[in-house]
Amino acid sequence: MERRKRIMRYLEAIPKIKRDITSQEAEEKEETYVANLNPNLRDLSDDYLYHINLGKTSSNLVETFKDVKFICMGGSASRMHEFAYYIKDLIGFKVPFGFDLKNLCEPSDRYALFKVGPVISVNHGMGCPSVSILLHELIKLVHYAKAKDVTFFRIGTCGGLGVKPGTVVLTNEAVDGLFRPEYRLMILGKEKVRQTKCSLEVIEKMEKIGKECAQRGEVGDVVSGKTLCAHDFYEGQGRVDGAFCEYTPEEKKNFLKECRAHGVTNIEMESLCFTGMLSHAGLKAAVACVTLLDRLNDDQVTLTHEQHLDYQQRPFRLVGEYIKQSLAAENNKN
Amino acid sequence: MERRKRIMRYLEAIPKIKRDITSQEAEEKEETYVANLNPNLRDLSDDYLYHINLGKTSSNLVETFKDVKFICMGGSASRMHEFAYYIKDLIGFKVPFGFDLKNLCEPSDRYALFKVGPVISVNHGMGCPSVSILLHELIKLVHYAKAKDVTFFRIGTCGGLGVKPGTVVLTNEAVDGLFRPEYRLMILGKEKVRQTKCSLEVIEKMEKIGKECAQRGEVGDVVSGKTLCAHDFYEGQGRVDGAFCEYTPEEKKNFLKECRAHGVTNIEMESLCFTGMLSHAGLKAAVACVTLLDRLNDDQVTLTHEQHLDYQQRPFRLVGEYIKQSLAAENNKN
Repeated sequence: MERRKRIMRYLEAIPKIKRDITSQEAEEKEETYVANLNPNLRDLSDDYLYHINLGKTSSNLVETFKDVKFICMGGSASRMHEFAYYIKDLIGFKVPFGFDLKNLCEPSDRYALFKVGPVISVNHGMGCPSVSILLHELIKLVHYAKAKDVTFFRIGTCGGLGVKPGTVVLTNEAVDGLFRPEYRLMILGKEKVRQTKCSLEVIEKMEKIGKECAQRGEVGDVVSGKTLCAHDFYEGQGRVDGAFCEYTPEEKKNFLKECRAHGVTNIEMESLCFTGMLSHAGLKAAVACVTLLDRLNDDQVTLTHEQHLDYQQRPFRLVGEYIKQSLAAENNKN
Repeated sequence: MERRKRIMRYLEAIPKIKRDITSQEAEEKEETYVANLNPNLRDLSDDYLYHINLGKTSSNLVETFKDVKFICMGGSASRMHEFAYYIKDLIGFKVPFGFDLKNLCEPSDRYALFKVGPVISVNHGMGCPSVSILLHELIKLVHYAKAKDVTFFRIGTCGGLGVKPGTVVLTNEAVDGLFRPEYRLMILGKEKVRQTKCSLEVIEKMEKIGKECAQRGEVGDVVSGKTLCAHDFYEGQGRVDGAFCEYTPEEKKNFLKECRAHGVTNIEMESLCFTGMLSHAGLKAAVACVTLLDRLNDDQVTLTHEQHLDYQQRPFRLVGEYIKQSLAAENNKN
C-alpha cells in the first residue's frame, strides 16, 4: 500500500503523467523488481544512458540484456577486460569464430563494459561519484531490459587492517570516514542518508565458496568485516605520504587502531555508494576486495608484479566460482 | 615564522626526521614553492606515485618534468589525448621522426598522461575522489621535479544554468550542494574544510582571451560565475531521469532557480576538489567548462555529434591560446 501511495503522489505531482491510468494499472504496468525506482522513467519514450552509451530504444535493451544475472564491477578498465575473458573461459561462453568481446561503452570513453552471456564486466573508475553515475545507468539498464534476479559484485583492491596482504575481505557493512554506515548525498540543497547494508545471503554463500577456494589454494584468507570507504586515497585514508599531511604518524596510528576497534577490516573508496545505492534499489550486492598491503605497517604498495597479478586474481576466482555454481544450480532446476 | 613553527612541530613529532638539522636548515633545504607541503616527503628516499606510475628516483623526475609550466586536466582519457595533439600543433612542439606521444601512466591503467614540452595533458576521471588522487600525485610530481610557476587548468564539460549550450564558464568560486564554498574532507575521523577560491589573475587573463577568441569565432560566449560541484550526476544535480528520483519536477525547478539566485552558472563534479586542493597548495588554477545543455530546460544531453565535438573544442581553444600567449611572453623576456 505504501508503494501505491507513493505512485499516487507522483501521479498527482508530475504533470506529464497520463491522467487516464489509475494507480492500480500503473503498478501492474511497472513490471520492475527494482525498489524505489524513479516513477518518471515510465513516461520517457526514450532514455539515453549517456555514460555507458546505450539507448533504451536504440540499443534493443530487452533483447540484448534480458538474460543478465551478474554485474561485476571493478576500478580499472584493463582489470575488468581481463575479468571478462576469465569468466568467458570459466563458464564456457562461446565467442563466435572470427569475433571478439567488444567494449560496449567505447564511444563514451567513460567506462569499459563487456557482456559475456549472463555476466556484465564493467569498470567503475575511482571513488563514489564515478560509481554513482554507473550504477544509476546500470539500474536503469536492468529495469529497461527486464532482467530478473541480478546480483552485483564489486571486485576491487584495497588496504587491509590487521590482515595479511592478499586477504580477500567481504564487506558486511560499509562505513564512512566518521564510522557511520551511511551513504550521504546532497539532493536539492538538503543532505539525504541511505543505509549501506550488504546482502547477507550473498555474503554467506561467498564465505562458503571462499573456504572451498582456499582449500584448493586458489585464494589466501577470506574474511568478512566492515569496510571504511574514504573519498580520498591519501589524507582520507590516513596516509602520511600524500601531497599534504597535517597530522603526525602517531595520530595516524591511533586512527587506524580506532578503525580496528570499530571492526574495520579494510579501506577503499567505493563501497559506500555501491552498497547505499544497491540496497536502496533492493538489489543483491556484495563487495569482495583483496588487500594489497596492511595499513597498520605501510602506506605504499610495494608488491612485485607477480604478487600484484596473483592478488588481483583472487576476487576473480571467488566471484567466478560463485557465478559458476549459481549458473549450474539454475541449469539443474531447468 | 608560522611556517617555521609548523616545520618545528613536525620535527618534534616525526621520529624518523633526522635530528641534526635545524628548522632554518630544513626550510632552506625544502626548495619548494608548494604551500602546505607534507613535510614527511623530505625524508622519503623514494616515492612511487602509484596511480600515475612514476617513481621519484626511477623516473628521473627533475630531468623529465622540470620544464612543466601547464598541467591541463579533463575527465575523459580520449579527450585529453586529443588535447595533447591539439596543443602539440598549436605550440609547434616537435615529436621526433618515427615516434609518437606516449601515455606515461599506461601500466597503471588509472589515468592517461601525456607530456608535450612544457604542457602535461592528463585525464582525471569523474568526481572529486578521482581528481583528489591525481592531484596529490601531480603536486608531489611538481615538487620533486622542481618545476616552477606551474598553472593547472581543468578543461571540462558541464550543465549550464541560464546560459546557451556551448558557453564556456570560468569558475570564480566552486560551491558544494549546500552552496558552501568549501571542499570538505574526512581526515582521521574529523571533518576538515578547505577553501575553494580560484586564481583571479588567471581568470582575468582567460576572460580577456575569451573575448579575443569569440571575436575570431573560435568560441561562443565566455562567462565567469560560481560552479556547483555535485558528487553525483543524477540526484545530486537535480535531474529527474536517474534510477531514483524522490522529488517532483516542480521541486527540481525551484532548486535550479535557487542555484541561479546564488550566482551558480554551471554544475559539474570536480571543481570543489580541484580548487580546494590547488588553492591549499598555493598553486595557480582555473576551471573552464563548456555547457552541453541548459539545465533550466533539459536533463538529457541531445547534441549532435558535430555540436558535441565543436563544444568540447571550445575550452581547448581558450586554454590553448592562454598557453600560447604565456609561452610567447616568456620567450620575449628571455
